[in-house]
Amino acid sequence: MPEPVDVLELGEAARKRLGFLVAAHGLTGVQRLNRLLDGSRGETSAEHSWHLALAALVLGDDTELDMARVLGMLLVHDVVEVDAGDVPIYDVEARLAIVADEERAAARLFGLLPAGTSETLHELWREFEAAETPEARFARALDRLQPILVHWAGTGAAWAERGTTVAEERELAARVAELWPPFGPVATALIDDALTRGLLREG
Amino acid sequence: MPEPVDVLELGEAARKRLGFLVAAHGLTGVQRLNRLLDGSRGETSAEHSWHLALAALVLGDDTELDMARVLGMLLVHDVVEVDAGDVPIYDVEARLAIVADEERAAARLFGLLPAGTSETLHELWREFEAAETPEARFARALDRLQPILVHWAGTGAAWAERGTTVAEERELAARVAELWPPFGPVATALIDDALTRGLLREG
Repeated sequence: MPEPVDVLELGEAARKRLGFLVAAHGLTGVQRLNRLLDGSRGETSAEHSWHLALAALVLGDDTELDMARVLGMLLVHDVVEVDAGDVPIYDVEARLAIVADEERAAARLFGLLPAGTSETLHELWREFEAAETPEARFARALDRLQPILVHWAGTGAAWAERGTTVAEERELAARVAELWPPFGPVATALIDDALTRGLLREG
Repeated sequence: MPEPVDVLELGEAARKRLGFLVAAHGLTGVQRLNRLLDGSRGETSAEHSWHLALAALVLGDDTELDMARVLGMLLVHDVVEVDAGDVPIYDVEARLAIVADEERAAARLFGLLPAGTSETLHELWREFEAAETPEARFARALDRLQPILVHWAGTGAAWAERGTTVAEERELAARVAELWPPFGPVATALIDDALTRGLLREG
């Protein structure tokens, strides 16, 4: 069966760009552990990616970071989940096991794009994964911080269901602080309040 | 009832930033006419905003545009829908009627942010609405083009249900071409193929 984009009366590069965008739209079908604030369903990875990018605009406003790179990384960082699915942050073994799947997914999905654009997006994904540049460290810190904010704001329904402990969240907060020190106190304030309100399990 | 962020042990600016991000998350609850590609539900405005920003990365790769501004505009352009809701593009009268609601929503929502960041984001929203700068014209053209792509890729289920005509889509394509000429042929190719496959109603 031919890919639908092949029938379009456009040059090859344009068809490839559209083919990638259609494939990437599958991220609207990947649900995360986080719920919408009303608890009605899981937040999709597409929604998470948007909210992260918005958070970068809002929280990175007074930094010297290259914001186009930060936003680019956040917009593409989860695209591999179209093939590889989402593995919650808490499942350390499953996250290690999925690395090879994600590499394959990146090769396939970014490979749908024409040369040039393909390398640009694949490189943004690699930069995020490597967590070495300041832009990548800021972006990855946000990727850990945003779920804490959404769990907290949604009164912890997904935390309660999973039985998430304060210790697990403190470990995430330490990783946030290590990646981007100014975000450490934000993570801690959210967790402290969640504990006060009984949204997290002790132990 | 105090806003929940007020209880957090953080400075006022940090609390305001988080308050805005929690309010903006409501965009995950605003469903659009466009469906997910499998037809299962309406695409949310949060998902639409992410897909637009990704499309800007992919389709703006060979332009001289200030990509940080383009992405910033696309990430905030629908935030007003948290208060004002989404009005489909086809409903010209309702879209005119909602302008004042959207202005009020922008003032309230961007007003949740601390000074400085508040003006930066409000200005991105105004630049998008004014459609005067090249960055805004590119971003707005994408905002018209992406739904055509998603309707087409999802085999036109929402088009069929609404009885959307070829003439309506040709009018949108003309607006896309006027805003950003290189996107005109893309819109036309999608509509031509949709017509060939009977996804749009004639007349």
